[in-house]
Amino acid sequence: MPSFDHPTETVFTWAAPPLKFGLGALAEIGEDLQAHGVRHPLILTDPGVAASGVPDRVAHAVKTAGLDVDIFDRVAVEPTDASIEEAVAFARSGPWDGYIAVGGGSAMDTAKAVNLLTTQPGTLMDYIAPPIGGGKVPEQPVRPLIAVPTTSGTGSEATTICVVDLLSLRLKAGVSHPRLRPALAVVDPLTTLTVPPAVTAASGMDVLTHAAESYTALSFDARPAFPDAKARAAFCGANPVSDVWCEKAMELVGTHLRRAVMNGNDLSARYGMAYASAVTGMGFGNAGTHIPHANAYPIAGAVENYQAEGYPPMPMVPHGQAVASTAMAAFRFTFPSNPQRHLRAAELIGGRPVDPDEGAEALPRVLRELQRDIDMPTGVSAFGFTEDDLDTLVSGTLKQSRQLSVTPRPLTAQAAARIFRESLSNW
Amino acid sequence: MPSFDHPTETVFTWAAPPLKFGLGALAEIGEDLQAHGVRHPLILTDPGVAASGVPDRVAHAVKTAGLDVDIFDRVAVEPTDASIEEAVAFARSGPWDGYIAVGGGSAMDTAKAVNLLTTQPGTLMDYIAPPIGGGKVPEQPVRPLIAVPTTSGTGSEATTICVVDLLSLRLKAGVSHPRLRPALAVVDPLTTLTVPPAVTAASGMDVLTHAAESYTALSFDARPAFPDAKARAAFCGANPVSDVWCEKAMELVGTHLRRAVMNGNDLSARYGMAYASAVTGMGFGNAGTHIPHANAYPIAGAVENYQAEGYPPMPMVPHGQAVASTAMAAFRFTFPSNPQRHLRAAELIGGRPVDPDEGAEALPRVLRELQRDIDMPTGVSAFGFTEDDLDTLVSGTLKQSRQLSVTPRPLTAQAAARIFRESLSNW
Repeated sequence: MPSFDHPTETVFTWAAPPLKFGLGALAEIGEDLQAHGVRHPLILTDPGVAASGVPDRVAHAVKTAGLDVDIFDRVAVEPTDASIEEAVAFARSGPWDGYIAVGGGSAMDTAKAVNLLTTQPGTLMDYIAPPIGGGKVPEQPVRPLIAVPTTSGTGSEATTICVVDLLSLRLKAGVSHPRLRPALAVVDPLTTLTVPPAVTAASGMDVLTHAAESYTALSFDARPAFPDAKARAAFCGANPVSDVWCEKAMELVGTHLRRAVMNGNDLSARYGMAYASAVTGMGFGNAGTHIPHANAYPIAGAVENYQAEGYPPMPMVPHGQAVASTAMAAFRFTFPSNPQRHLRAAELIGGRPVDPDEGAEALPRVLRELQRDIDMPTGVSAFGFTEDDLDTLVSGTLKQSRQLSVTPRPLTAQAAARIFRESLSNW
Repeated sequence: MPSFDHPTETVFTWAAPPLKFGLGALAEIGEDLQAHGVRHPLILTDPGVAASGVPDRVAHAVKTAGLDVDIFDRVAVEPTDASIEEAVAFARSGPWDGYIAVGGGSAMDTAKAVNLLTTQPGTLMDYIAPPIGGGKVPEQPVRPLIAVPTTSGTGSEATTICVVDLLSLRLKAGVSHPRLRPALAVVDPLTTLTVPPAVTAASGMDVLTHAAESYTALSFDARPAFPDAKARAAFCGANPVSDVWCEKAMELVGTHLRRAVMNGNDLSARYGMAYASAVTGMGFGNAGTHIPHANAYPIAGAVENYQAEGYPPMPMVPHGQAVASTAMAAFRFTFPSNPQRHLRAAELIGGRPVDPDEGAEALPRVLRELQRDIDMPTGVSAFGFTEDDLDTLVSGTLKQSRQLSVTPRPLTAQAAARIFRESLSNW
């Protein structure tokens, strides 16, 4: 109940870039660039996506409109400060007046950083949020950035955030500002047909956990009131706009993800997943994720030897695998905060009614069934973690203040440890 | 069935401005302006809204953030080329570097035109769509425009369109360009508490018909393919994003409009209506309206003596009354194009299941019941039209190519005449 001493928030915020969605949407990208005044764009992509041929198809579409275009295909999967510096140095060496990010979160986040650092003074570290970085605010206009997501996952095409792995500090950090939001998202399900099964599975689970977390996050109006607009968080918590799209995304992923993983050429499943991913950005990217995403940071940061199928040969936990691995235990823990929503999420993902008596186990069960069907890792032990790593993981999770601020049930160190322990092996 | 000779469209587009929504959202408007670099904004409003005190409250909030601010309160209800010229001349006379539109569609459309003409060369007529105007495209950046809708109606806070009554030509015409879209929509349900019952009713019916029309509009993928991005219509037809929000808006209006009209201080009803209106802009403003909106133009243009309660004392049919007056007959006519959707719309608005045997009459019935309850005019005869005016009205409707392009059932002159005849008196 609201108190006059500690009033709760009454306002939510929402924003998303313009969207062009559909089969063949990519074909008009040259004209879309022209509409934004771009004459010579640079495509940023990673080697895996480049090998799929999609960036070449984008370049072809750009040239068809009479524009020059070049491709930088050395974006790192899970970008680091070093990989971003390389991309920025390259982008400074040519005449490019606009950017096209083609790929998953890595390409889009790298393009955001390139756009920032080729249009503003200062270094990446200057713009990273304090206390890690200088918290500098971009004051100059940026160049038009068109995002072409190809993995039906991250939702980065719609957000203001760029996440970077700071190698020297061994941690992930972010830059966030409205100017970093792409000028346009072009989502063409045809670009996702060549995504390998393991990447399809992990990206799809990223969409799904994002939706389930946003849906069960602390409601915007249960948070303490912000003192002013500046203090207002970029992620406002569950809200009426977000709720509608979370429900839609959970239903879409429940319907389409298995088929998209089993048969990459199932266009209707690819379409459904591309749409599910687009609504992440458009509909609930502003709500905020909670425990599974908070856990994903230390999981990704502390991994030593795990190599994921379908990803570059380097020790790395793909973001979708990291978030999915603790989702079951996390939702078991958050169930009491809003049983109705957890049951509803289970129904939407599972595609059938849930017996309310199943209680806290319903949502973990449908998530486990789905993950087993699409060959996701069994849990954090699959990444090489043991009981001995729990302290490291827990302490990493407890630093994720952005996620913890909308966690629907306060997360103690003890609770976090239990979630990781239950997640060592989910089946 | 798609044909290779006449392929149908596969792409839909969607865009909306950032939204700040909630009780007290207005309080931060000074900081919102600062975030957009504005130091001295001009508030544009009409005398009726000015009398409600809301513009003064906005000005107070702006000053609290340490900014200067002035108010122009001579916006005309249903703006004309003359009223816009007056506003532009005023806006050119001062140091204002940003605009705040406070009011309904009239204030917002006027502010869009002022923003256009104080930042670009040329006259209003240069920018109006051909063949009426020059179809000039704004090439310079515009100033930040924050829209503060106070009527829970039009959805203009989210669109790129500004509609003007061209007095000398006796017709309404529009300017549309992405640059005209406000930089931010601030929707504070508290600003709607003083809106008079008749204005609440008409604005609410505008939201409702907009939703019901967008929901039953020709689907984006049933239209002939556009040859290129430039040819792509700003209004793409019914699409998956739009559908979700149309359903939500119809449900919200069905639940809240009667109460908002009966008791303007019913905050929960005002909140529901403000939210319904916000989702118009955010969710389905890009789909496109059809017959009731096409009919509204000649109704508004040809009226001679009608004066609406709660509106300025001049011959005028408020937009919401104009669109609502032929909605019943229009949906009776479009029913065969998609019976399922028409029945579903009736269920959502009526708040209870509909007997499918009721068929084409179901949606007209719930619209009639609602309109009777909120004291809307009985039909176009209430505006002074008779059988003798049918030819004039029909010929005006058939000129509305934007609406006719997404009408789900081709509209012949004969059908249009029948719709107007049935709408002379709806009960």
